[in-house]
Amino acid sequence: MKILGIDGSGLVASVAIVEDDNLIGEYTTGYKKTHSQTLLPMLDELKKMVELDLYTVDAIAVAAGPGSFTGLRIASATAKGLGLALGCPIVSVPTVDALAFNMWGASGVICPILDARRGQVYTGIYEFLEDGQFNVIKEQCALDFHDIAKEINTIGRPVTFLGDGVPVFKELVASEVKVPYRFAPAHLNRQHASSVAALGCIYYENGDIETAADHRPEYLRLSQAERERMEKEGKA
Amino acid sequence: MKILGIDGSGLVASVAIVEDDNLIGEYTTGYKKTHSQTLLPMLDELKKMVELDLYTVDAIAVAAGPGSFTGLRIASATAKGLGLALGCPIVSVPTVDALAFNMWGASGVICPILDARRGQVYTGIYEFLEDGQFNVIKEQCALDFHDIAKEINTIGRPVTFLGDGVPVFKELVASEVKVPYRFAPAHLNRQHASSVAALGCIYYENGDIETAADHRPEYLRLSQAERERMEKEGKA
Repeated sequence: MKILGIDGSGLVASVAIVEDDNLIGEYTTGYKKTHSQTLLPMLDELKKMVELDLYTVDAIAVAAGPGSFTGLRIASATAKGLGLALGCPIVSVPTVDALAFNMWGASGVICPILDARRGQVYTGIYEFLEDGQFNVIKEQCALDFHDIAKEINTIGRPVTFLGDGVPVFKELVASEVKVPYRFAPAHLNRQHASSVAALGCIYYENGDIETAADHRPEYLRLSQAERERMEKEGKA
Repeated sequence: MKILGIDGSGLVASVAIVEDDNLIGEYTTGYKKTHSQTLLPMLDELKKMVELDLYTVDAIAVAAGPGSFTGLRIASATAKGLGLALGCPIVSVPTVDALAFNMWGASGVICPILDARRGQVYTGIYEFLEDGQFNVIKEQCALDFHDIAKEINTIGRPVTFLGDGVPVFKELVASEVKVPYRFAPAHLNRQHASSVAALGCIYYENGDIETAADHRPEYLRLSQAERERMEKEGKA
């Protein structure tokens, strides 16, 4: 089975091709360019380097949100466009799950934190069982940081934090988290399309797919524009 | 601190740029092309995509062996050439250590196995302490598979296997390993230059560097040509 993975949910742009247990290729950048400048050129470059015939792809796994609204739309539009053209299904992978999947096999629990602005994080809590099975303890959600810290403390197990929320919430971690904690290093602490693709393989095998036409990103929260309109209309 | 990572020790060709806790970019292919066709073009492409000025790189971390003799020579020659031109030091990272570092934070012990032909593996045994510190239990070496299996059984802890030796030795794992074991999935089971760079950062901070002129790969075993010459000379 061959899966194309795409992640544009944060600053990182990443594309990867996974075939069964093999990573055929991955191209990841964490740079200030917008995803409209990076994602498709990176995929095109990778495709040429590994001589990939896109029509041999069985499914496209995309980090479907939450995350940067614009980034999600660019990644989902890319997945939808390719899926329609290639006639292959989409596997919609929750962004926070895919980030946790970077830490496959880690001890303790894993808590990705993505900076959701306004004091909130996109987060969830995960663990890996001894056989490597991925277990979602708390599904991805938008929370105030101290609410997720409270849950981490209640679980009482050592925790690994990762994601672009780490530099933002590092001091709150130090003051609010009462269990042993650590921060994932550079090679694992941000989005990787290979994780999206590898987790997407599991979803695909479970039949958890959708058509390119049906696929849409999962924002989890209202966009700033929608929120402001609702506030305005509420006041009016 | 900015580190350029290079890995050409196996089928995989991989380049990455890590700056402190951030992965600026990584490009990895596991494809049948030779590294002379991939490594430098991939680095050039990545450099352009993230607008990298190579003169801002503090050191070049290279997976220095063991591994494919030709691949090691291409990767080391690339590192040496760049190091000489840029006037920056080389961090020589043991291939098997860098592969184990993919599994940062994993529970149990980690045992990379690289197919060294003639029934042998390049291997080592590693663990991560609760604070994330990387601990070498057994330094990288060339061994018959059943010798490393024996050591794994003696340690008696669950083990994660990874590397290109997994498909080759899977049946021997099943018959000889008496502790719970698992195989790392596609996104972590082969060389990543980001792991080389992230581990290289630690070496660099410890002052464990060498000049580009001094750097040379660590083959661990004689090449086939050297071995055959010695056998011939021994017989003569």
